[in-house]
Amino acid sequence: MKGYYNNLALLTDLYEFTMAACYYHHQMFAPATFSLFIREYPPHRGYFVSAGLEEVLNLLESFHFAQDDLDYLASLKLFSEDFLHYLSNLRFTGDVFAIPEGRIFFKEEPVLEITAPIIEAQLVETFVMNAINLQVTIATKAARCVYAAKGRKLVDFSLRRTQGIDAGLKVARASYIAGFIGTSNVLAGKLYNIPVFGTMAHSFVTSFEREIDAFRAFAEMFPENTVLLIDTYDTIIGAHKAAIVGKEMAAAGKKLKGVRLDSGDLVRLSKEVRAVLDEAELQEVSIFASGGLDEYKIAHLLEQGAEIDAFGVGTKMGVSADAPYTDLAYKLVQYDGRPVLKLSTGKRTLVGEKQVFRIEKEGRLKQDIIALRDETLDGEPILKQVMKNGKRIKPSEDLKVIRERFKEEFAKLDERYKRLKAPEHFPVQISPGLQKLQNQVIFKVREKELGES
Amino acid sequence: MKGYYNNLALLTDLYEFTMAACYYHHQMFAPATFSLFIREYPPHRGYFVSAGLEEVLNLLESFHFAQDDLDYLASLKLFSEDFLHYLSNLRFTGDVFAIPEGRIFFKEEPVLEITAPIIEAQLVETFVMNAINLQVTIATKAARCVYAAKGRKLVDFSLRRTQGIDAGLKVARASYIAGFIGTSNVLAGKLYNIPVFGTMAHSFVTSFEREIDAFRAFAEMFPENTVLLIDTYDTIIGAHKAAIVGKEMAAAGKKLKGVRLDSGDLVRLSKEVRAVLDEAELQEVSIFASGGLDEYKIAHLLEQGAEIDAFGVGTKMGVSADAPYTDLAYKLVQYDGRPVLKLSTGKRTLVGEKQVFRIEKEGRLKQDIIALRDETLDGEPILKQVMKNGKRIKPSEDLKVIRERFKEEFAKLDERYKRLKAPEHFPVQISPGLQKLQNQVIFKVREKELGES
Repeated sequence: MKGYYNNLALLTDLYEFTMAACYYHHQMFAPATFSLFIREYPPHRGYFVSAGLEEVLNLLESFHFAQDDLDYLASLKLFSEDFLHYLSNLRFTGDVFAIPEGRIFFKEEPVLEITAPIIEAQLVETFVMNAINLQVTIATKAARCVYAAKGRKLVDFSLRRTQGIDAGLKVARASYIAGFIGTSNVLAGKLYNIPVFGTMAHSFVTSFEREIDAFRAFAEMFPENTVLLIDTYDTIIGAHKAAIVGKEMAAAGKKLKGVRLDSGDLVRLSKEVRAVLDEAELQEVSIFASGGLDEYKIAHLLEQGAEIDAFGVGTKMGVSADAPYTDLAYKLVQYDGRPVLKLSTGKRTLVGEKQVFRIEKEGRLKQDIIALRDETLDGEPILKQVMKNGKRIKPSEDLKVIRERFKEEFAKLDERYKRLKAPEHFPVQISPGLQKLQNQVIFKVREKELGES
Repeated sequence: MKGYYNNLALLTDLYEFTMAACYYHHQMFAPATFSLFIREYPPHRGYFVSAGLEEVLNLLESFHFAQDDLDYLASLKLFSEDFLHYLSNLRFTGDVFAIPEGRIFFKEEPVLEITAPIIEAQLVETFVMNAINLQVTIATKAARCVYAAKGRKLVDFSLRRTQGIDAGLKVARASYIAGFIGTSNVLAGKLYNIPVFGTMAHSFVTSFEREIDAFRAFAEMFPENTVLLIDTYDTIIGAHKAAIVGKEMAAAGKKLKGVRLDSGDLVRLSKEVRAVLDEAELQEVSIFASGGLDEYKIAHLLEQGAEIDAFGVGTKMGVSADAPYTDLAYKLVQYDGRPVLKLSTGKRTLVGEKQVFRIEKEGRLKQDIIALRDETLDGEPILKQVMKNGKRIKPSEDLKVIRERFKEEFAKLDERYKRLKAPEHFPVQISPGLQKLQNQVIFKVREKELGES
């Protein structure tokens, strides 16, 4: 992989550099504030889970251009030597406010605001968006799966079909935040200290002369951790073979942990397999299901009475198949003390540096208010300062702390906002102060740019 | 990013290791052949574009476990010291046959087959699938956009919302293979030698006191490369300001390259903007459109007579929004000379080592035949050996060669297979030799595993 991931300053759109060059030559070094928010809910979403901040802070702290980056930029013959020299010394020196990872947020709320000299704030746009968009998308999708599973355990199985390597790692992380118990992804386990799970594939079964030979070989090797995949040839016949091996293990003082179903009618098969296992006095052997699962399918299976104790959730969660991106925007809201916005059709931006106040009542989330940062309102201000002058204010958070934070807050969100289909929209208001400034700026921009008066 | 991408041997599912440990302790070192294929077309797809092989070969050539990988595996307390020692010396020593990048392929055809000692072939499963799945998904989506654009130029704008960093790079690469002229992604430009494009964002316009100040600043800085974004406040008023700047540039002997629309009714606006520019004798100024585009929207815009010369295609291409994954499978088809398969409901696997023969007639693709590798049939065998004993047979291919290969073959595919909606399925047959072996193996497996006779 040639180590190109070690330096990501070039991981950006070319226009960030052409704009930066203009700012540089016009001596525009004043502070700019950019606001990162999601304009609209994807289908069937009514909340988002904050995730990805840790990566953003890592990237901001290490932001710099290496000599070969500058050589490449020079080769484009677009930029002056002065500007390239300026870039060679550039570091990120700004401030960052953000909604902590694991917290819930809603559309139009700034999940992150960056204030920095405009060139810095502009150049980091693309990777900030990329990091937050992916992890929010996946954490939100995973939260929906956790909600659907009603307390049953979920494991991330998506690595083989995530959109690339980076996504594979971030999906393991984001789904763990949302309540998955772990992942099949070994590298993610190592990097993020997430529990790893997995036992066997169909290839293992077919590589042996007979299915039962494969089962016995595995049980002998991993007597504490055997989940037998029983659908390679026929699920019910496979269940009977698993029962034989389960009884052999019991006779030797060991315990078969589970069986896995990966195809077919999981409602019917899980009930029949349960009966086969119970008949063999293997009541404690769990039934694990996988194969094309997502929140909709999990909910359906449980409604139909499927006898499934845990789910391996793969591709559809790992790419958030029904909503593979969010309508995330990173917009300039203030430059050199002047609040700004664009008027483009259907794309509202809220001006100025902001704060979100969250109001709880009797342990339930009641309402959010998007306000100007210097307003003082009821409720908890949920944007926290996380970086000052380019340095983190606090050390990285433990993933388990983030996971616990999500669990706690999600429990406070009413069911009607969490429904898998057509959820209600949580009430989010604009503060009078923000609304007033917004109106003033729109009026002024219309006057100045559209010639209205 | 801590350099963890430099060693990807742990980027795999835990079950690859538990299976490998069983193979090791059962002394199963015989050669296994795994076949990589896509079971079914995603919605509205009728072909796939091969892409991702270069990455697979890089990964296979560098496959090894570092000491800290082994330490992590040891910490899981699942594996014996013997096995971990065995892993420490493991390299990939197998053979690989593949359909070259840029070629078209169809469902059930093996895009890649790996033959190697079963532990090696098993351990590389996850990253091989991850690499091919992503790039095939995106190259196919991008090919559909190119088809819809009927010769107009397309640029990849997706980086900010691709699913992670790796995807951002691979999307630039895969869309370039499929005929995009370049990308906004600077790091991809550097790594893959792809042309990079981009000029300005809304933040640039709003950071100046007035829109026209921003336009003039940019035109002064980049007189050869100015595309003005004109929808920040009002597209038509913006077009008039762009015309003023265009005329100023003309008076100075320069040329405004284009304007960009990023919101609103692109059909109506593009026509009105064209009229504004033509009125100002700026017929040569191009109109560039972006904002939520994909193949469906591009086709619709052109059908409605939009006056658009080039498109920036972002998120929906970059995540293949309507089909964000393929039903890719990596299945054991032969172990130790014995052809094998699984019978799981609805999931056919074709046994044995295979070849695909492609038949052309009068410069058109007529039919493919999936056969056993040692059969000799009419047509071109399109799976080529690319690796022998763990070493590449040929050096990496130039991306431009791959791109040209796609262009040529895509031109030979009839329209009915390329339609954006409900395309016909290209005829793919199973050879008599393969069908016979398939039947024999199914018969034998049923007899052995299901007790049928």
